[in-house]
Amino acid sequence: MKIPEAILSVLKKEKVFLIATHINPDGDAIGSALALSSALASRGNTVHVYNKDHVPAFYRFMPGYERFKTGLKQCLSEEPVLVLLDCNSPERAALEGYSFRRSVVIDHHETERDFGDIRWVVPSAAATGLMIYHLLKAIGAEFTNDISMNLYTAIAVDTGTYRFRNTTAEVLRAGAELIETGANPAFIADQLYERWEQKRFDLLRIALRTLEIRDHVAVIHVSGNMFRKTDTAPEDTENFANFPRMIRGVRVSALLRDMGKGSWKVSLRSKGEVNVARIAELYGGGGHGNAAGFKIRGSLRAVKEKLFLAACGNKKEQ
Amino acid sequence: MKIPEAILSVLKKEKVFLIATHINPDGDAIGSALALSSALASRGNTVHVYNKDHVPAFYRFMPGYERFKTGLKQCLSEEPVLVLLDCNSPERAALEGYSFRRSVVIDHHETERDFGDIRWVVPSAAATGLMIYHLLKAIGAEFTNDISMNLYTAIAVDTGTYRFRNTTAEVLRAGAELIETGANPAFIADQLYERWEQKRFDLLRIALRTLEIRDHVAVIHVSGNMFRKTDTAPEDTENFANFPRMIRGVRVSALLRDMGKGSWKVSLRSKGEVNVARIAELYGGGGHGNAAGFKIRGSLRAVKEKLFLAACGNKKEQ
Repeated sequence: MKIPEAILSVLKKEKVFLIATHINPDGDAIGSALALSSALASRGNTVHVYNKDHVPAFYRFMPGYERFKTGLKQCLSEEPVLVLLDCNSPERAALEGYSFRRSVVIDHHETERDFGDIRWVVPSAAATGLMIYHLLKAIGAEFTNDISMNLYTAIAVDTGTYRFRNTTAEVLRAGAELIETGANPAFIADQLYERWEQKRFDLLRIALRTLEIRDHVAVIHVSGNMFRKTDTAPEDTENFANFPRMIRGVRVSALLRDMGKGSWKVSLRSKGEVNVARIAELYGGGGHGNAAGFKIRGSLRAVKEKLFLAACGNKKEQ
Repeated sequence: MKIPEAILSVLKKEKVFLIATHINPDGDAIGSALALSSALASRGNTVHVYNKDHVPAFYRFMPGYERFKTGLKQCLSEEPVLVLLDCNSPERAALEGYSFRRSVVIDHHETERDFGDIRWVVPSAAATGLMIYHLLKAIGAEFTNDISMNLYTAIAVDTGTYRFRNTTAEVLRAGAELIETGANPAFIADQLYERWEQKRFDLLRIALRTLEIRDHVAVIHVSGNMFRKTDTAPEDTENFANFPRMIRGVRVSALLRDMGKGSWKVSLRSKGEVNVARIAELYGGGGHGNAAGFKIRGSLRAVKEKLFLAACGNKKEQ
């Protein structure tokens, strides 16, 4: 993977950085930010790590997660260079309205906006963590245990620990090297997949009862009442959308989450060639080909009908 | 990984082989047998592949699975060399009572018996498929698409696609090479994890409702009534025992299956150091440290109470 010279140059010359990632951060965003910040800090730089949202509880095993700050005040007075990771527009990171002396974008999502003085956007990269892995090699960073754990986690999350279509020989080789420099693959898998709060497991059991399948499209939902009954919150539904995908013949699976006041958040997952980003875009959302999302208002029934209509239609085009 | 010279020598000199694996074969047994048989056949040998049981439906994506025969008659008259894979006693392969001119054992399980003229048993190997991978490299076999698919699947099954404690840098590097020679990691993961019959998914949903947790031990059960209601059979519960393990704090998870007439089959799974083989042995069963099983008679309530007693007690010893 070729690193743009301009990025190597700015990382070398500048001294104060603000590393920011998308709201509702996932393991790739968190791991990429922590790994890059460790590497830059170890070279004597001042590094701030920002996210509008707190690091979700189930990612708090990632070394250094407490370095994430949800405020910008102190940081901005130091006139940092912005490094935006795992997204490519300031809005996705809740940074709209701020201006930065210089800005760098490192991302593997499809382009949303042409923001950034230096842009390194590689949609074919399996994870932003994989790009950071190559970047750190290029700048000769030491792969400490913490950096290796964070990058391994980032890559694991975005490839479903090597189960998704973005899994390549290159991805596995990066994983192998990160194990050799300190990542513990079984510990990370245990943290990612086997640390569910019981109430979250209870919520899943209830959500699975709502399963409805039509024409290769599977939908489950979580109502406000289910959240209250199990003392859970929308963030506890992370990964739920993947479960109906286990069923043979299902090509699109969807999770509808009740966000209150008639608003629903829809997460879409697909198998193979079905592009769910296209469906999400119909409703002002976005994402990847196999994982996308959008927000919508309406009754549960009406939203489900719209979704079946859009998803069944889209699937047939493939 | 060092291959014993005696194995290289016998594979070179002999011309007729019987490759056999354990009854109730899993992906590691099937993939190892198919890969070795392809390599030996391509060198002009006569190769028979035997298992007493049919290849389970969900492994029938593995290239060449139809080469498995459930009979031995034709084969034995040719006086083959036996190559026993993924087990190390003839009983495990339903071969007790037969005698062979020469026998080779290649396995990664703890030793059960000292059977075999040439034994290569490496309990630290993540999969028998990984040993076959190294063996085929040592004999200079061509890694065809089919061989690569079979070995990748073998390794994927026994490492939980790189999630279990046996996942090492070496395992990931082997995976990377097998992708380069033709294994499709996403296709394999899809076949292994996302081809559930809907009735099997329905059974899981119902089984999860029976969840009971006490003192770090989680138990679910499937009654005869549930099988009837969903038109499923005991073999459809493959992997169910792993689900309660997802819950934080659960160290032992168990699945009880109603086998009819007051008889239950119990599957145990554990995290970390808890040795469930010890629990299974209390009731005449056995297995590995993290996966074991046994059969027991009694009412559901009585069996559950016994299990909680044994599992909670065992866990505390750790």
